[in-house]
Amino acid sequence: MTFPVSPLAPKKMINFKKLEGVSVSSVHCGLKKNKKEDLVLIKFSHPSLIYGVFTKSHTPGEPIIWNKSIIKKAKVSAILINSGNANVFNGKKGKESVRKILNKLSNEMNVDTNEIYLASTGVIGEPLEHSKIISKIPVLINKLNNKSKSWIQAANAIRTTDTYAKYHSEKVQMGKNKSIFINGLAKGSGMIAPNMATMLSFIVTNANLSSRYCLKQFRQCVDKTFNSITVDSDMSTSDMVLLISLKNGEVKLNSKKSKLFFDKLENLMTTLSHYIVKDGEGAKKFITIKVIGTDSKEDAKKIAFSIANSPLFKTAMAGSDSNWGRIVMAIGKSGVKVNSKFISIKFGKNTLIKNGEIFKDLNINKVNSYLKNRNIDLYVKVGKKKNSSTVWTCDLTNKYISINADYRS
Amino acid sequence: MTFPVSPLAPKKMINFKKLEGVSVSSVHCGLKKNKKEDLVLIKFSHPSLIYGVFTKSHTPGEPIIWNKSIIKKAKVSAILINSGNANVFNGKKGKESVRKILNKLSNEMNVDTNEIYLASTGVIGEPLEHSKIISKIPVLINKLNNKSKSWIQAANAIRTTDTYAKYHSEKVQMGKNKSIFINGLAKGSGMIAPNMATMLSFIVTNANLSSRYCLKQFRQCVDKTFNSITVDSDMSTSDMVLLISLKNGEVKLNSKKSKLFFDKLENLMTTLSHYIVKDGEGAKKFITIKVIGTDSKEDAKKIAFSIANSPLFKTAMAGSDSNWGRIVMAIGKSGVKVNSKFISIKFGKNTLIKNGEIFKDLNINKVNSYLKNRNIDLYVKVGKKKNSSTVWTCDLTNKYISINADYRS
Repeated sequence: MTFPVSPLAPKKMINFKKLEGVSVSSVHCGLKKNKKEDLVLIKFSHPSLIYGVFTKSHTPGEPIIWNKSIIKKAKVSAILINSGNANVFNGKKGKESVRKILNKLSNEMNVDTNEIYLASTGVIGEPLEHSKIISKIPVLINKLNNKSKSWIQAANAIRTTDTYAKYHSEKVQMGKNKSIFINGLAKGSGMIAPNMATMLSFIVTNANLSSRYCLKQFRQCVDKTFNSITVDSDMSTSDMVLLISLKNGEVKLNSKKSKLFFDKLENLMTTLSHYIVKDGEGAKKFITIKVIGTDSKEDAKKIAFSIANSPLFKTAMAGSDSNWGRIVMAIGKSGVKVNSKFISIKFGKNTLIKNGEIFKDLNINKVNSYLKNRNIDLYVKVGKKKNSSTVWTCDLTNKYISINADYRS
Repeated sequence: MTFPVSPLAPKKMINFKKLEGVSVSSVHCGLKKNKKEDLVLIKFSHPSLIYGVFTKSHTPGEPIIWNKSIIKKAKVSAILINSGNANVFNGKKGKESVRKILNKLSNEMNVDTNEIYLASTGVIGEPLEHSKIISKIPVLINKLNNKSKSWIQAANAIRTTDTYAKYHSEKVQMGKNKSIFINGLAKGSGMIAPNMATMLSFIVTNANLSSRYCLKQFRQCVDKTFNSITVDSDMSTSDMVLLISLKNGEVKLNSKKSKLFFDKLENLMTTLSHYIVKDGEGAKKFITIKVIGTDSKEDAKKIAFSIANSPLFKTAMAGSDSNWGRIVMAIGKSGVKVNSKFISIKFGKNTLIKNGEIFKDLNINKVNSYLKNRNIDLYVKVGKKKNSSTVWTCDLTNKYISINADYRS
């Protein structure tokens, strides 16, 4: 099945900047039923530094199990990504596929298997036909290059139900002739929830990130971006975000530029994670939910996700209906103790509830017409404290049902 | 809006048995926009024993707040139920409505306000026009009677998006000429999740339940029935189950009959809770999910609900698609530690997964044709222990979206 491009798709994306020390290629190996590309190789000319955040699922895919086993070493020479099959829950066969693919890659490229990362996305529980992958490895190696066109091709090849390819680039000017670039690609459109739902993202930079504090910063960025989005509350078995700091052509960060770098990294990850929500299956609206006033950031995030994951809230948004009772319901079921008296609710600039009561100048027609927009901001205040959290989601439409009732057919 | 009767509605229901000491009446007071009845009074001729379980929402409705404040006394003389407005989040006005309604009822019937229970269901956050209720109280009192027809009328009057009235009766033979009856009615079709989602149930019996152990038994029954169903994972602000043991005409339980009584009570509550799922908004399939093999019953319930609340699982069921990968995903995201090697999955008698591997004789066409049934049994084993839990849910269809995108329009 192919779906028309999401109405929320961005009109323009910022293309990859050329980086030395990394190259990419993609082919069609036959895991996707149509003739589209479904296999990507990313190769580093020198073993590079890698950080990763992985799904918290207790039934993770084989690539997740493999990557987690080598991430402590934090060294990468290549990443192989396939779409069309997630290699999850395939028993011994799944592990065998991983081993055979790794051995072939290791032999052909003369790199240590412990420096090869794998990612698979697609249907769960169907044995991976690894021979299709293995036979194409020499072709992939042959095609390796660092043209930005090839990166876009790669972003396309890792799509499953995604209706458009997702990539972004940021730049940090370091001096007159020196720049740091951050290039990222991502995929994901359903099974998106906190903790890395069916979502893959690969980010490459020439910044030197060897300082220990960088891993912590990276994890915080993931928390504020990829772990702050939800499409359908379903968490996938296969998700990961990998950040690679190129060994070749690296640029050192001074402490001043370091803050700037992580701001830019967060920007990039925000952009990519929003692209995923904007490609939410059947999504017609992009919704930003900010919750403020809780005892902790975690509580604010709990309430925000309780709203973002509520089917009743999401369907109200689909119908441009300011049924804020459903927001109150979702606040109530979040598990966070709140006092109704302190609750205020705003859609955009329109106040609906102020301190636990309907706002006296509430114009419900104005609110409902605001809700016809493609971008909706919901602001919820539940107390006087300053702790806050922002999450992003989309509406729940008939199309989500049609897509998911027929995914395998 | 009126919706056609759910395709899962039972063909026959067991009608109320006549009980002395309780009477009922219903009228149209104008809270529902159509001309349907929306107000019910249940009156006990003598103050009777009452037990209650209420929503865990932190933004509960005013009736919940009121009932919780008097439940310790465990005495009831009357219950007033309205549909069309939930009296949730109405600030001071909401509390004022409760007070005015209680005062009127107390004066007209000459009973203590502390023995009057209230229940409201409908839209959240719109001020309750309590004058509409108050003006009809004399009419309600006048109409009180104990005909079973009037109970069915009451079951109809408390409906909101329900497509059919829900009631059931059970009998325990105590001797040659003595019987215990349990009569129950319920409402609910959306915003249904554990912890009493938009769901009301009122159960009346002539059994003497004054023994302390009865409250504990009742709570266990709620856990296994009303708290084991989910339509859309959304928990309501207004839900309650009330159990009343009539003072007048009471029948003592001996220890032998006591077990029988609570079995019958559980039967009744199972039946009513299933009626709610079968009226799940847009539901076309009734799904029973049994999970076994966890370290505790609670873990089994967590996994079962993780599956039952997964939009991806529910849409697969709508499409009669044996996409068991989504079941594996839902097991994985439940938060319960499992070992994939021990997972077995069956739909009806069809084994799909045995001990972490696809079943060798799996006939996927047979499974998919089994999934075309209206009643689907899913059996998930995740380990060797005997702890288990069963929950009930329905599929997620386009109709759920249509109903909820337009509820208030």
